[in-house]
Amino acid sequence: MRIGAIEAGGTKFVCGIGNEQGHMEEWCSFPTEHPETTLAKVSDYFRDKGVVTIGIGSFGPIDLKPDSPTYGYITTTPKSDWENCNVVGILKREFPVPFGWDTDVNAAALGEVTWGAAQGLDNCVYYTIGTGVGVGIIAGGKRIHGLLHPEGGHIRTRRHPQDHFAGLCKFHGDCLEGLAAGPAIEARWQTPGSELPTDHLAWEMESFYIAESITTSILLHSPQKIILGGGVMQQMHLFPMIRKQVVHNLHGYVNVPELLQHIDQYIVAPGLGQHAGLYGALALGIEALNQVKTDSSVSL
Amino acid sequence: MRIGAIEAGGTKFVCGIGNEQGHMEEWCSFPTEHPETTLAKVSDYFRDKGVVTIGIGSFGPIDLKPDSPTYGYITTTPKSDWENCNVVGILKREFPVPFGWDTDVNAAALGEVTWGAAQGLDNCVYYTIGTGVGVGIIAGGKRIHGLLHPEGGHIRTRRHPQDHFAGLCKFHGDCLEGLAAGPAIEARWQTPGSELPTDHLAWEMESFYIAESITTSILLHSPQKIILGGGVMQQMHLFPMIRKQVVHNLHGYVNVPELLQHIDQYIVAPGLGQHAGLYGALALGIEALNQVKTDSSVSL
Repeated sequence: MRIGAIEAGGTKFVCGIGNEQGHMEEWCSFPTEHPETTLAKVSDYFRDKGVVTIGIGSFGPIDLKPDSPTYGYITTTPKSDWENCNVVGILKREFPVPFGWDTDVNAAALGEVTWGAAQGLDNCVYYTIGTGVGVGIIAGGKRIHGLLHPEGGHIRTRRHPQDHFAGLCKFHGDCLEGLAAGPAIEARWQTPGSELPTDHLAWEMESFYIAESITTSILLHSPQKIILGGGVMQQMHLFPMIRKQVVHNLHGYVNVPELLQHIDQYIVAPGLGQHAGLYGALALGIEALNQVKTDSSVSL
Repeated sequence: MRIGAIEAGGTKFVCGIGNEQGHMEEWCSFPTEHPETTLAKVSDYFRDKGVVTIGIGSFGPIDLKPDSPTYGYITTTPKSDWENCNVVGILKREFPVPFGWDTDVNAAALGEVTWGAAQGLDNCVYYTIGTGVGVGIIAGGKRIHGLLHPEGGHIRTRRHPQDHFAGLCKFHGDCLEGLAAGPAIEARWQTPGSELPTDHLAWEMESFYIAESITTSILLHSPQKIILGGGVMQQMHLFPMIRKQVVHNLHGYVNVPELLQHIDQYIVAPGLGQHAGLYGALALGIEALNQVKTDSSVSL
């Protein structure tokens, strides 16, 4: 069975075709431009490919409420061209198949519990730290939705004592994304992160902020695994710094071996590498197809 | 059917007997002393009452993993008498009935979604702010467990710019509980909170800290309702101050009418008043009984 997967990111789109076993047969990628252009490219990619379902993990905020008139839309995004864009509706016109739909980071978390570093776990938090910061959460085996969906990139963390940078978030200035996303590193030091030496103060600050938010996640979600993806996390030297800071922050309060003895297996890179979101979209597609099958067997 | 309910708090125990409809027929309360003394009083209360199941919402940290050898224990609590106390095991010896078991705050959250201010909702966060700070969370209709269970009272919030108090938490100093629980208010101002006038700076700081943590909860859990209980929240003038600060913190980013237009119905007092935990324990008892019924019907 051919299953379509779309990772709809704010910077680029990745489209792929895979199967139920999590094998991705092919994929392609293109920059995120005006929705009309971008979604036309998506349609071109999937045309005549015979997909039986499509899963989409999208940048947001998005509307996830199945009974909402704007279900399937990207809603109040700062990327103004995409504001109130009916992503699912537009694609469904050409591809009348079941669609799975969630945030890019919830999709990535789903990909990781299905085939990646958190395989088989019921509770997992996935952070992406790149051009923005996003958080996807699986709790009790389900992706967290609720009032809207998590927007954990915008939490307010403590400030590093030596950091006086105002922050870049359009909404909040110095929220986590405003302080720790790639563009914030570059603006603070007037140098792209990839050009800063590993012993630069930038990385102490970066690991401080990421550790603050992970500490909060541990205390509020009690995940069995924390996965850190995104462009900034390609700086692998951040991992040990972050782990050390998290242990320092918790100060032995959450007394479990996963934190006290095996934190190197607890805070990890994505098992699916940079494709967690795409594999997650594949899993969303499979879920949507199974849902339709369940619904029709119930109605029989 | 007579269902036993125990709210096992760090300061006091409340025991009650209710039915499946959420009617509490009777209850009693006594201070939390040495476990031997306290659990003997619990046994005395339930003896010959004919309860068919007992639910317990307990202070923690507690062991919630059904397959763990210390399931049903209070584990690493700072209340040293209670450390590694086998609460469920001790009571089960005298009352061989199904037991429900969760944290006091997860129980309170369950009580509120079952019969209280969040009735029928799938996503809800319950804060208690009293002698300590605790957070109970329902996500996707389930209480969050995971690695352990949430310990949201210990998250690190930003500091109020005028607050130089070191904080009282034995583990973390100035975590949320260390700064915002009742004893912290009293230690900071050398006056019990109940004696401070409503326009005192203490309340601006208190609402600042509670709003910081609620902002984080909204961004990480996306709850449909936030419920604030506990002794400190008897200061009803805190509610409008907290709501205003939360709206200020979010700055319009989470663009939903619940936050922008109806926040007075979004951040609320417990519908079950000071008995949310006890009713939650009742709901845990009912759940445990139903679970046993389901398991035995499956095994038939």
